[in-house]
Amino acid sequence: MIFEDVLKNIVERSDGVLGAVIMGMDGISIGEQLVDPGCTIQTVGIEYALAIKSIQKASKSLSAGLVQEVFINTQNNIFILRLITDDYFIAVAMVPEGNHGKTRYLMRLSVPSLLKEFE
Amino acid sequence: MIFEDVLKNIVERSDGVLGAVIMGMDGISIGEQLVDPGCTIQTVGIEYALAIKSIQKASKSLSAGLVQEVFINTQNNIFILRLITDDYFIAVAMVPEGNHGKTRYLMRLSVPSLLKEFE
Repeated sequence: MIFEDVLKNIVERSDGVLGAVIMGMDGISIGEQLVDPGCTIQTVGIEYALAIKSIQKASKSLSAGLVQEVFINTQNNIFILRLITDDYFIAVAMVPEGNHGKTRYLMRLSVPSLLKEFE
Repeated sequence: MIFEDVLKNIVERSDGVLGAVIMGMDGISIGEQLVDPGCTIQTVGIEYALAIKSIQKASKSLSAGLVQEVFINTQNNIFILRLITDDYFIAVAMVPEGNHGKTRYLMRLSVPSLLKEFE
């Protein structure tokens, strides 16, 4: 399945990923890959879906165009959200010392093939 | 004034910054530096303050610890938000091709001296 394959590619080629999910803004997951079994990646997606909506609203009123990526750095984690369409996104949770540059790159590269699935 | 000096340092040593502001979560600015006179940096801060609150709420429920940085990539801009305390943040707007790695670094470095002002 394309969704699982894309996530598997991101997770396996990255350093420090805990889990990855493809999710709709409604909080419904359409694929996930867990590296750390303790990672609640579904909850990560659901919680940040609300944040993405708030960022989309802000960006619209700033005429900044479509939101493509949101990167969140907290004390304990890094979260990377990459929009596929306005309604679907990939969320990745990482350890803070992970190589997020590479993960961001792999996530960006995966968008065109995912986009085809939503056409 | 420390706030203006810190922002001036970030803006002058970065490539591609349009404007920078230090703002409270209540949307009240306590300092700003504009590079592009057309940059509505106050509005950027006000709009994204709401998004930060939503991210703080999500991160709290994920036990991810305090939010330190939010990086937003849109079609037309890059926005970097660096939390100073839970109630104050620096917001920087950039052109998409700007060197955001250096700007993020300069913003991170500026936090300790700003923190002293809020003690």
